[in-house]
This record gives sequence, structure tokens and C-alpha cells, in this order.
Amino acid sequence: MTDELTETATEPSPQPAEPEGPSRLTIIAWSGDLDRIWPTLILSTTAAASGMQATVFFTFWGLFSLVKPGVRVTGEHWMQKTLSVMNPGGAHKGKLSKLNFAGAGPAMMRKLARDNKVPEPQELLELAQEMGVRLLPCQMTMDLLGLKPGDLIDGLEEPVGAATALLEMKDSDIQLFI
Amino acid sequence: MTDELTETATEPSPQPAEPEGPSRLTIIAWSGDLDRIWPTLILSTTAAASGMQATVFFTFWGLFSLVKPGVRVTGEHWMQKTLSVMNPGGAHKGKLSKLNFAGAGPAMMRKLARDNKVPEPQELLELAQEMGVRLLPCQMTMDLLGLKPGDLIDGLEEPVGAATALLEMKDSDIQLFI
Amino acid sequence: MTDELTETATEPSPQPAEPEGPSRLTIIAWSGDLDRIWPTLILSTTAAASGMQATVFFTFWGLFSLVKPGVRVTGEHWMQKTLSVMNPGGAHKGKLSKLNFAGAGPAMMRKLARDNKVPEPQELLELAQEMGVRLLPCQMTMDLLGLKPGDLIDGLEEPVGAATALLEMKDSDIQLFI
Repeated sequence: MTDELTETATEPSPQPAEPEGPSRLTIIAWSGDLDRIWPTLILSTTAAASGMQATVFFTFWGLFSLVKPGVRVTGEHWMQKTLSVMNPGGAHKGKLSKLNFAGAGPAMMRKLARDNKVPEPQELLELAQEMGVRLLPCQMTMDLLGLKPGDLIDGLEEPVGAATALLEMKDSDIQLFI
Repeated sequence: MTDELTETATEPSPQPAEPEGPSRLTIIAWSGDLDRIWPTLILSTTAAASGMQATVFFTFWGLFSLVKPGVRVTGEHWMQKTLSVMNPGGAHKGKLSKLNFAGAGPAMMRKLARDNKVPEPQELLELAQEMGVRLLPCQMTMDLLGLKPGDLIDGLEEPVGAATALLEMKDSDIQLFI
Repeated sequence: MTDELTETATEPSPQPAEPEGPSRLTIIAWSGDLDRIWPTLILSTTAAASGMQATVFFTFWGLFSLVKPGVRVTGEHWMQKTLSVMNPGGAHKGKLSKLNFAGAGPAMMRKLARDNKVPEPQELLELAQEMGVRLLPCQMTMDLLGLKPGDLIDGLEEPVGAATALLEMKDSDIQLFI
């Protein structure tokens, strides 16, 4: 009888439903800088490898990391073209925020990483997908830049807005803005 | 009788008191860059529109977004004046961290946003207030820059310190440093 | 009897075990910029002073804040040496991300802070240790830069990887990426 009462008592718990599944990490990847894409992908792949569900929401400059290497932002407005020149597509062209004025920075950092067996961003992005990290493009940024889903790399989830990103974060154990 | 027992059993729950009210988002708005003010205001207004309670704590460079358009930081020290020159007041003068060296960046981004119906920061700041987003200035930054409450835009809550900001974050479902 | 049932009913709660100890703050200190080290240390020391357990995970540029003042990054590769030149060790040499091009910025900000009784980063780092803030260096960044534990300031915890940092964050009430 105790068991029965226990079940009855715990079932209608007034506590908000805690996710019974794996822990969750959600990152807003706002930056396109190489040195910020790195921690985003290192944290999300490490989380996935640890059994967590990892979700990365790519917005603003971060969205450029998802643009196919061959694609340039080609909206109707000349400004969008100008913006695309200043932010060429693809994670392999990401800039190091500290060192980009020096030019040698990103190449140097990649070489450094290679010598020390730390994966490059592009590899990490592919690895992240293989490991089940969910990669979500921001719809508003896509509209702003005139990008279509076909302009982005394969394997992404459907583009979502800020409201959906907030819901993802609310249900997560860890939320970071990088 | 089962109902009675259920109530008795769940009432003295040992779980920490979960807020029964709406979900909460707290953002530390540390940056004065246009491209970081944007996500801060888009996320907080979207949260408010979704029924969440949204709080933004403006500190460091972020505080400049709250300075009245006509006001310049006019502390007693020449350094404060120098700093004020480098960071003129008002969200409408925020800089794009990536593009400010080019000069055209912020204006370009605003034009881009206008063409795509994405609101400007200043509009978002006013909209945020109308939607009930709580805007809190950082007391320490105000002291540092010699700013008085009257130098800031209307509709803000009382200035608070780091301890209060931490309490706000602790009780929130989502905390972001932008 | 009601009391007995209550105990029975609440003991085998299906809720995940909430930490019964103090609230926890975990910060990923990714940046070496003076104006980002400041909020990291102000938030963590304020948290500690408020009875929270505060942990700071220093990674990437943030790790340079923990390098002993006299130490230079002296890995085997010339690139590591180059990197070390561009990011000389020690929090007292941190750069203000906005103002470093002007040169006067960091000195100015320190002077400003001094006049307003806001502690400097180096003082805050020592104060943080005294107050029990846990300072964790990132193992991967140390490997990347060829740094040994002896190259870092005293009083740090053992270097950890991303998986450990994620665990720390998951158990925290507040997680921030600064």
C-alpha cells in the first residue's frame, strides 16, 4: 500500500517537468571569428561525446560559418554584396578577432592547432554533425543576407527564429552566448 | 482520501522552490557594439512577447546604450572626457565591432535592417520598454563614468550592483553574457 | 501517520538530485581583454562574497591572465613564440578590446578605476583566490601554447579539459561565457 501511495503522491508533482532525457547544452554562435568558432565546436562535440544533447544556433556573423565554401552572399542590394565581401563564406575563412589585422593570425593558429593535434573548425563542424550535434541556422539572419537553405552546408536542421532558440535554451542545462 | 494524502505529501516538497511564475531570461549587456545590442534586444523582446520575464543588466560599454542622445559623459577627470569621446552616448551611435574601421558598416547594417523590416536598436530599446522588458543600469559603471540617473533614458529601473545582477541570474531559466 | 506517509512519498522523488549546497556560478573566461577580465573577476568575487561557489575556467586568450608576469610562452615552434609576443603574459598587461589601438586605453581605464576605488584585474585575481574562487586553467590551451603548470601563477587548481568544464557548468545555477 505504501508503494501505491508513493506512486500516487509523486505522479501529480507540482514541480515543472524536468527533462528525463540526457542533459542539454545550447550555444548561440553569434561570432564568425575563428577563435570563437573553436570553443563553440569544442564544447558542443565534447558535450555530444559525453552523452549530452548539444544544439548550436548560428546567428549573425556566426551564420557565415554554415555558408557553403563556394557560395557568396548575393542578395539584390549592393550592400548585401558589400557585406559578403567583408565576410566571405565558410568556416575555413573565419578570422581571429585579435590577430586578423596581422593577417598571419588565422593561418598561424591553424598550423599551431595542427601541430598539436587540435582539429580545425571545418573538421570540427563536420565532426559535430557526425556526432549528432544539432546545427540550427537563424532564419532572420538568412533573410537579412538573402540566403536560401541551399546556400548552406548539408545536414543542418530547419532554420528557426529567436522564439525557438529561446525555447531550446530554456530547456537546456547549459546555455552560452559565444 | 488519496487526494488528501497526495496534497499532504507534495506540499512539504524538499525541492528548492521553483518559481511558479513565468520563465525568466536575464542578459548582461556588456557590449556597446551595434551588432551585440541587436541580439540582446531581439532576444529580450522575443522573450517578453513569448510570455517570459526578460531582464537586461547594462554594464560597462553596454551602459552607453542607455545614455540620453544629447548627453555626453562629463566627469571631472579629463580621462572620463576622453573615454566619452571614444564612446559617444546613445544606441543610435553604437558601432559594429567588425565593421567600424570601415565607417560605412553601422549605417549599412541599419539600411540592410530597414529594407528587411528588422527594427533598429533604438526602436528595439523603446519597444523593449513598452513590452515590459526590465532595463537595469549598472551602478558601478555609472560611478566610473560619473553618470547620474538623469543622464540616462527614461523608464529604467533603479541602478543595481553585481550582487543584485547575480541574484536575478540565479533565479532565471536563461542567463547570457552578451 | 500522515507524516510517515509524507516522508515515504517524498524520499524516492524522481526529480534529479538538486545540489543542496550553495548556489554555483561557473564562468568560461575565454578573453584576455582587460575589459572582459574585469566583469569575470567582479562577478566571481561578488558571487563568492555572497556565499556562492564561484568557478572560473580560463581558456584560449583567457589563459594568458594566469601566466606568471615574468614568463613568456616559449614553445618549440617559432609560431608559439610569435603568438607569445602578440599576447604577453599576465593580467596586468591585458588589453582593452575597444581601446587598445589607442594605446592609452588600458592605462586610462586602470587610472579611472583607481580614482573610483574599483580594484585592478591583478588585484581582483589575487582577491578572487583569497576569497575561495576556484581558478581552473584549460589543459588544451596549455598544450597548444607549450605551457607547464609551473608557468602559471600559484594557487590554481589542476588543469582540466572541456568535459570537466561542461560538468562544472551543468551543476551550476549560472553559466557565462565571457
